[in-house]
Amino acid sequence: MFADTPKPPYYTVIFTSVKSDQQQGYSDMATNMWNLAHQQPGFLGAESASADLSITVSYWKDLDSIKAWRNNAEHQQAQKMGKEQWYNAYKLRIAKVERDYQFARL
Amino acid sequence: MFADTPKPPYYTVIFTSVKSDQQQGYSDMATNMWNLAHQQPGFLGAESASADLSITVSYWKDLDSIKAWRNNAEHQQAQKMGKEQWYNAYKLRIAKVERDYQFARL
Repeated sequence: MFADTPKPPYYTVIFTSVKSDQQQGYSDMATNMWNLAHQQPGFLGAESASADLSITVSYWKDLDSIKAWRNNAEHQQAQKMGKEQWYNAYKLRIAKVERDYQFARL
Repeated sequence: MFADTPKPPYYTVIFTSVKSDQQQGYSDMATNMWNLAHQQPGFLGAESASADLSITVSYWKDLDSIKAWRNNAEHQQAQKMGKEQWYNAYKLRIAKVERDYQFARL
């Protein structure tokens, strides 16, 4: 359920978005991008939840891995369609994970 | 809609959780904690979305602000009840935001 990330440090991209009312093709593209991201070098996992606001948090080995994914040709096409159609707005933050903690019920 | 965070650097806490089937009192406490967090020194904003997985991302001026919030008495009580009742599991990551980007439709 949670991304099974290694011991820090590693990087995260926090992608927060508000969808538009034009969602044709979004779901297929989102599935494709989710799968494609999982095949990228340096990809460590991702977590996603969607309500009024959608939040997708992905985890990466380093900034170079994030840059390579940003420049991936299929991903670039998805980004273009996102701006043209699917999103009213989004915000993306790149951060370096320094610590983590977890809890699980016995 | 998005947290109106300042120019990086600042800190983020990514809190990912899976709820239990015991949710009595959760909603009130979540609202209280959301409001209380907004009154803390160094608090910069928060974003939340909930599906199978719940993700809450909060933003903070520095690590000291995060530590003070962790040690807040009311928050400690909420954490205790979270572990006893409301969460089956959670994962918390502390990261330093280095860059951000945004898009908004004209």
